[in-house]
Amino acid sequence: MITTDLISSGSGPALVIAPHPDDEVLGAGGTIARLADAGREVHVAVVTRAKPPKFSDEDTEITRTEARRSHDFLGVTKTHWLDFTAAELTEQPHSDLNAALGTLVRELDADLILAPHPGDIHMDHQLTFLSSLVASRPHQDKYPATIAAYETLSETNWNAPYLTPPFVPNIFVDISDTLERKLEAFAMFESQAKQPPHERSVESLRALATLRGATVHRHAAEGFVLVRTVV
Amino acid sequence: MITTDLISSGSGPALVIAPHPDDEVLGAGGTIARLADAGREVHVAVVTRAKPPKFSDEDTEITRTEARRSHDFLGVTKTHWLDFTAAELTEQPHSDLNAALGTLVRELDADLILAPHPGDIHMDHQLTFLSSLVASRPHQDKYPATIAAYETLSETNWNAPYLTPPFVPNIFVDISDTLERKLEAFAMFESQAKQPPHERSVESLRALATLRGATVHRHAAEGFVLVRTVV
Amino acid sequence: MITTDLISSGSGPALVIAPHPDDEVLGAGGTIARLADAGREVHVAVVTRAKPPKFSDEDTEITRTEARRSHDFLGVTKTHWLDFTAAELTEQPHSDLNAALGTLVRELDADLILAPHPGDIHMDHQLTFLSSLVASRPHQDKYPATIAAYETLSETNWNAPYLTPPFVPNIFVDISDTLERKLEAFAMFESQAKQPPHERSVESLRALATLRGATVHRHAAEGFVLVRTVV
Amino acid sequence: MITTDLISSGSGPALVIAPHPDDEVLGAGGTIARLADAGREVHVAVVTRAKPPKFSDEDTEITRTEARRSHDFLGVTKTHWLDFTAAELTEQPHSDLNAALGTLVRELDADLILAPHPGDIHMDHQLTFLSSLVASRPHQDKYPATIAAYETLSETNWNAPYLTPPFVPNIFVDISDTLERKLEAFAMFESQAKQPPHERSVESLRALATLRGATVHRHAAEGFVLVRTVV
Amino acid sequence: MITTDLISSGSGPALVIAPHPDDEVLGAGGTIARLADAGREVHVAVVTRAKPPKFSDEDTEITRTEARRSHDFLGVTKTHWLDFTAAELTEQPHSDLNAALGTLVRELDADLILAPHPGDIHMDHQLTFLSSLVASRPHQDKYPATIAAYETLSETNWNAPYLTPPFVPNIFVDISDTLERKLEAFAMFESQAKQPPHERSVESLRALATLRGATVHRHAAEGFVLVRTVV
Amino acid sequence: MITTDLISSGSGPALVIAPHPDDEVLGAGGTIARLADAGREVHVAVVTRAKPPKFSDEDTEITRTEARRSHDFLGVTKTHWLDFTAAELTEQPHSDLNAALGTLVRELDADLILAPHPGDIHMDHQLTFLSSLVASRPHQDKYPATIAAYETLSETNWNAPYLTPPFVPNIFVDISDTLERKLEAFAMFESQAKQPPHERSVESLRALATLRGATVHRHAAEGFVLVRTVV
Repeated sequence: MITTDLISSGSGPALVIAPHPDDEVLGAGGTIARLADAGREVHVAVVTRAKPPKFSDEDTEITRTEARRSHDFLGVTKTHWLDFTAAELTEQPHSDLNAALGTLVRELDADLILAPHPGDIHMDHQLTFLSSLVASRPHQDKYPATIAAYETLSETNWNAPYLTPPFVPNIFVDISDTLERKLEAFAMFESQAKQPPHERSVESLRALATLRGATVHRHAAEGFVLVRTVV
Repeated sequence: MITTDLISSGSGPALVIAPHPDDEVLGAGGTIARLADAGREVHVAVVTRAKPPKFSDEDTEITRTEARRSHDFLGVTKTHWLDFTAAELTEQPHSDLNAALGTLVRELDADLILAPHPGDIHMDHQLTFLSSLVASRPHQDKYPATIAAYETLSETNWNAPYLTPPFVPNIFVDISDTLERKLEAFAMFESQAKQPPHERSVESLRALATLRGATVHRHAAEGFVLVRTVV
Repeated sequence: MITTDLISSGSGPALVIAPHPDDEVLGAGGTIARLADAGREVHVAVVTRAKPPKFSDEDTEITRTEARRSHDFLGVTKTHWLDFTAAELTEQPHSDLNAALGTLVRELDADLILAPHPGDIHMDHQLTFLSSLVASRPHQDKYPATIAAYETLSETNWNAPYLTPPFVPNIFVDISDTLERKLEAFAMFESQAKQPPHERSVESLRALATLRGATVHRHAAEGFVLVRTVV
Repeated sequence: MITTDLISSGSGPALVIAPHPDDEVLGAGGTIARLADAGREVHVAVVTRAKPPKFSDEDTEITRTEARRSHDFLGVTKTHWLDFTAAELTEQPHSDLNAALGTLVRELDADLILAPHPGDIHMDHQLTFLSSLVASRPHQDKYPATIAAYETLSETNWNAPYLTPPFVPNIFVDISDTLERKLEAFAMFESQAKQPPHERSVESLRALATLRGATVHRHAAEGFVLVRTVV
Repeated sequence: MITTDLISSGSGPALVIAPHPDDEVLGAGGTIARLADAGREVHVAVVTRAKPPKFSDEDTEITRTEARRSHDFLGVTKTHWLDFTAAELTEQPHSDLNAALGTLVRELDADLILAPHPGDIHMDHQLTFLSSLVASRPHQDKYPATIAAYETLSETNWNAPYLTPPFVPNIFVDISDTLERKLEAFAMFESQAKQPPHERSVESLRALATLRGATVHRHAAEGFVLVRTVV
Repeated sequence: MITTDLISSGSGPALVIAPHPDDEVLGAGGTIARLADAGREVHVAVVTRAKPPKFSDEDTEITRTEARRSHDFLGVTKTHWLDFTAAELTEQPHSDLNAALGTLVRELDADLILAPHPGDIHMDHQLTFLSSLVASRPHQDKYPATIAAYETLSETNWNAPYLTPPFVPNIFVDISDTLERKLEAFAMFESQAKQPPHERSVESLRALATLRGATVHRHAAEGFVLVRTVV
């Protein structure tokens, strides 16, 4: 039988790659919860950490604590902190990020990769996307069977329409049963969540999930763009 | 001074072109209300009517009555019924639609055109878009200064991502003050409105407005794609 | 558990939609065989038939006989002949094709749709793609969970690069075990197969399968572009 | 040696396909003159004729006389009148236009095809482009080695930016020596030429040629988009 | 009333962001003059300066003097020199440019941003575009209502057609009354202006303005691509 | 006569620009052989070298020896080693690569440039493409008349479909007579060639050549994307 599927293959864990903590929840929190509920291992890789002098270590620790709590709540198996410098991925060797993600993908034997979208306005997102693909190249027998990009409120919609790659979802994951958990998990990022009408707010996330769901006649969904799947 | 503006020029009326009744409210209902509140003439052209044998005249009359009520409520100056056959624009001469819309644009001396999106799944929408542009060609001194495309829930999101033109809004009209009126106007199309999670429902429309608004830090907005503006 | 998958869901049959007989084998013959081997129902809808005066009934019957034999060999459950006029889909009501495919999709309760690519040079292919999407709109609880487009040698590569939608596969189905069966099934279309270096030849099909496979480190594959999947 | 070149192969004539008379001069007049000066056969196919009731036969005859004079002046070998109905290509069988152009391409054994751009606002242009490609399919030993699209002032720039295919030239033909002849040839279409600032005026044509030339450090050029060349 | 307009809002100054001195005049000189004539504050930010060892300080001072004179002549309110190193933006921290432009946008309370095009061949232009967007993110109540990209002769047309973002203008600003002033202002950059047929010459600029104007039946225009406007 | 042609102009040498040794053979080996057979000078520029600590000097020397042998076999006139650090082009000044390639283009007076594709997954490829264009800008009387991008197995097909620039060939060079030589030349890179089903294998290269050939009814071809040609 053809058994590898798009989101829930049993052949290896899922890996959600987040440039900064909270991106993974903004983009894929409901899917993470659904995968965890289905008994699948879900790992999160947080690529950067905020560092002095731009950010205090204390602030960083706060966000990290929020992330840990949020991930536990969603059922994340393990969170991997890669500790590149936030907002400065452009200044760090591209091959270092390729190598760090490549090692993680291999060690986990990850089968599903969820990465940020290359059209996001933040270059940390753009570079993380590219390195996620390099780390998952199909140049040997084993590699992640499926790679998809998630959308991040406060990044994806702020780039230049028609001049940068658009996010037009072709994968819809029904999160009717996990939406509330996603919103609660996001609210745990107290230092990051904003009040409406800011895009990075619980209310905006709910609106997005309602819209993505309605597009496919479901009460809530998360949208993704497929990069590649091998069946 | 540079006085022609994108949405609210004083030099002529706005014309919202709808392939079928309710498209104009789904896509631009809040903007119509805002234009009307600002004292601007707003016309609606309904391109098609449902005809026997596919549809009964009675059903058509019901929708038309709903449209009249909804338009009155929003402040539409006048509704123009072009009476092409619904779901059969492909079977009618393209030049006839060009001519009908061209005449209307000239007679109204319209300055702002809001048309459906060419990436919509319905060919009535695609052909209406193209004819709207033909009718507005800048080949003489006077022509509509601004043309933009609106998005239609239950049409725009159901076409093929990356294979047909995407809708990525670059114009955001703040409808914080007119959203409720838009939703009420849509609900007046009792024969057309669906229950959630259908995309053509009040709840989906509210989610879309919340999302489009949040993208630009407003409580509600309608998004459009600019085709052309001459300043 | 998340059980709907991209190619092999158990919830309903697959439907391969072919503008003309042999397109389904050119584009998806190896996948059809693999689905059939996996015990899944696979239906083929042939949209058009060649008709007088352009084609003789005898020629049409020859092709049809070839198709029946080829489909049997691949394990197709049933072939549906829609009998629109070949090379004249542009002259037939678009809504008729929408209706015919819509009825079939509903009656079969199809879960997976494989359609031709909208960037193919043949307008029969372009219109069949669009109607396949209309027939599969997600506007009610049940609809095909997955829609993808296949590539057709002698159609997909002959359109205008960068001016018409490109075919860039993001789904790769490993057909290492069914490639030979695909090639044999294609060769059964004796009236359609050409000698190399014609693109519609066994040799070209083998080269394409080798290339699509190599891209994902497999010995043979068929590539598809995802239109939409709902998980 | 590699002897087939992009514009001036010696292996067969050039064929410029014009939806309406004057398109061939607007888009490729300087190149036609240069090809003729180089001793190459240049044919023009005019796809449509204006017909009653929309147009009088007298008007049509005037344009045709202008075209003949203009073509003679440029050095066109022969003009072929296909006599489809202008502004109504959408209403005529697509396969008829394919057949008419296919016959002409074969009979002339044309080696270079210059066609209108598929992103032009006029559907006569869009359909002519597609049929030009169908007529030139590389499915046998002999076919036109090079196909390119020209730009038509008053058609190419009036479609929808980013929603329809853009014209971005990648072939530049130096017409420094033939620009004046092109402008004179265009002026011979007295019934079609407009006064500035209309786009279809001698002044606009000169500005376009100056710009296209300056892009490649030449005093005047015509731009084309390559569809396909086989070397 | 709906009072925010695309180019001439009264709510704050315009800011034209130029990677190198003269880009602002090449791309938006006529619009700058028109805005100034209309009584609106217009600021120019020059992102880089040529530095030793590649360039002498003397040369830099010459260009700067030319820019000052040119800006005065056009009516620029104030020129802001950001002093990043020319032709080396790729080597400087991306977040530094984000910060510098962000500070300027906030301090000026700029309402209209004109930025270079992301498809320009020069990476200084590409990075300046991206940072202009980051600096203008709509993540609080106040931000620039309108962002648009201008075209730069000798940068925009020299990138790779169809492989990098095309410039297809959807905003046309009528500069019939300010074209001559623009050309004179450009000519003041004696160290930068070239002789025809170089693209960066007065003659090429005039041809471009004539063409952009003719597209919308005006004697001269500047074209822009809309990134976002909030009404 | 119009004598500059797309691939085989007599006015200057061809220059194939390879980020790493073997890219030039993967992408253009058959064309190189054909150009050499036709008596044209063909130069190869290898942009990077593998350096310690990532790579040993010994390994580098092995590859270089393989390259020399391979190039001799194909008839390359001269190979130019630019010695940037492999896999680290992002960390080296962009203007240095522009300068190095610019000097080479001028010194050779190159007329044809074959560069890697900007949509390749490797940033060394993306940056090499951009610098190739900068080095070839048409800002003076002499510059390379033709620039085209080649495809590289194991780079071009591993990027993100529809989110990064696609490779859709519009130039097809018939390599029926040089395919075997290309494959042999590639096999000489013993340290780089892989076994099937790896994409970088002799078998995959043969399949690609067969497919590209079949698209234009030839037994083997290499595909390129035209960036610009001036005739």
